[in-house]
Amino acid sequence: MGSSTVSSSKLLFRQLFEKDSSTYTYLLADISHPDRSALLIDPVDKTVDRDLSLIKDLGLKLIYAMNTHVHADHVTGTGLIKSKVPSAKSVISKASGSKADLLIVPGDKIQIGNLFLEVRATPGHTLGCVTYVTGGGPDQPHPKMAFTGDALLIRGCGRTDFQGGSSEQLYKSVHSQIFTLPKETLIYPAHDYRGFTVSTVGEEMQYNPRLTKDEETYKSIMQNLNLPYPKMIDIAVPANMVCGLQDLTSKSS
Amino acid sequence: MGSSTVSSSKLLFRQLFEKDSSTYTYLLADISHPDRSALLIDPVDKTVDRDLSLIKDLGLKLIYAMNTHVHADHVTGTGLIKSKVPSAKSVISKASGSKADLLIVPGDKIQIGNLFLEVRATPGHTLGCVTYVTGGGPDQPHPKMAFTGDALLIRGCGRTDFQGGSSEQLYKSVHSQIFTLPKETLIYPAHDYRGFTVSTVGEEMQYNPRLTKDEETYKSIMQNLNLPYPKMIDIAVPANMVCGLQDLTSKSS
Ligand SMILES: [Fe+2]
Ligand SMILES: [Fe+2]
Repeated sequence: MGSSTVSSSKLLFRQLFEKDSSTYTYLLADISHPDRSALLIDPVDKTVDRDLSLIKDLGLKLIYAMNTHVHADHVTGTGLIKSKVPSAKSVISKASGSKADLLIVPGDKIQIGNLFLEVRATPGHTLGCVTYVTGGGPDQPHPKMAFTGDALLIRGCGRTDFQGGSSEQLYKSVHSQIFTLPKETLIYPAHDYRGFTVSTVGEEMQYNPRLTKDEETYKSIMQNLNLPYPKMIDIAVPANMVCGLQDLTSKSS
Repeated sequence: MGSSTVSSSKLLFRQLFEKDSSTYTYLLADISHPDRSALLIDPVDKTVDRDLSLIKDLGLKLIYAMNTHVHADHVTGTGLIKSKVPSAKSVISKASGSKADLLIVPGDKIQIGNLFLEVRATPGHTLGCVTYVTGGGPDQPHPKMAFTGDALLIRGCGRTDFQGGSSEQLYKSVHSQIFTLPKETLIYPAHDYRGFTVSTVGEEMQYNPRLTKDEETYKSIMQNLNLPYPKMIDIAVPANMVCGLQDLTSKSS
């Protein structure tokens, strides 16, 4: 099993938690570069002030405010961030059908200083889900870090019963796009509900109670979850299709 | 500002969160050593099963279940852990006045495999508070990691109005025992209430809203917090004086 510590002289990394929706927001920056460029993955509207205050304390310049997918359980912070940091660009996958400054496709690289993230398509929880993976190469973080959104959670995975979800597609996504990464790759999900903060590819390949099953068993597990209709979905999804700005407009009026 | 990533080929490290009391539990292990010895810092009774299941998945051998101090907001998991893993030893400071298998004093080293933690006395939140700091040397984690309990929190500190607390003492503890560590030292506290997971000595020396003040201002801040009486204190403190076993006994009866 991997050591769950990252070695990089460039990377400043912070994991941040929003309690109400159990969402993890990630801050990454290249502090070896004079620009001290930074990005946020999956910021939440409620914690934007906390995140921007930390970015200020650390002397970073926020370049990108990114989402792994259109969230149904919270309003993204990307719109609010853009209103407070006009130079920051919102980022989401083209496949999500959402509005953003940068619509990324699989294989794209997102660069901050000399660090970069690669985009992998991991649909199944939603149609437009992507996983951001730190780059390869001796000057990039080792082990790699994978920001899996709701595709792969620690000992779990996102539900597949709405937003264009498909258990068949999610099974294929995780197996072809995440479980093919080196085993020591760190898994940083968009949520955890039991207080775990990180896992590894090797650990999930061995112990994920759903994704270690064969495809048919997995599909039957996913079809029988009987989860309640998400409380926030009718507010969050339309807002998140436009960087959370719909919510922002209603708040400020 | 430090990079907030740790480089160590030996260390397996996991930060774990208990939501009700916003407590962080830390798992450390030397995975380069054939014994794969591990320790837990500040385990919570409610999340013992989660922690032991993770330890099992990772193929680790739990040697020590440690506390930074006698907690007032939750029941420690050390007693319950000992009942489930008889070889594990509970650890707390001698100055706490509590019962445990190992009563440590400042300067003691706690060893797992070839990794070790050093004990620093950081009283003030309680009389017996200690900070555990990873060892020095080329084969130990770099930067150092400091598990500060409630002495130093991220942009905050523990209250000083009960359990033998003293704002004067806490001010001296943090300045003499924590702020003297290298600036890039990672601060891992026992709690965070706003979703921060880690800070550094340099960051707290610059931005901690309380401990950057002069001693008189600090004492006046601490004297005027007007915090409510802790909900759990009358249950937690007596239980935690005996590894949480008082609670365990009442549960099993
Ligand atoms: Fe989601
Ligand atoms: Fe405490």
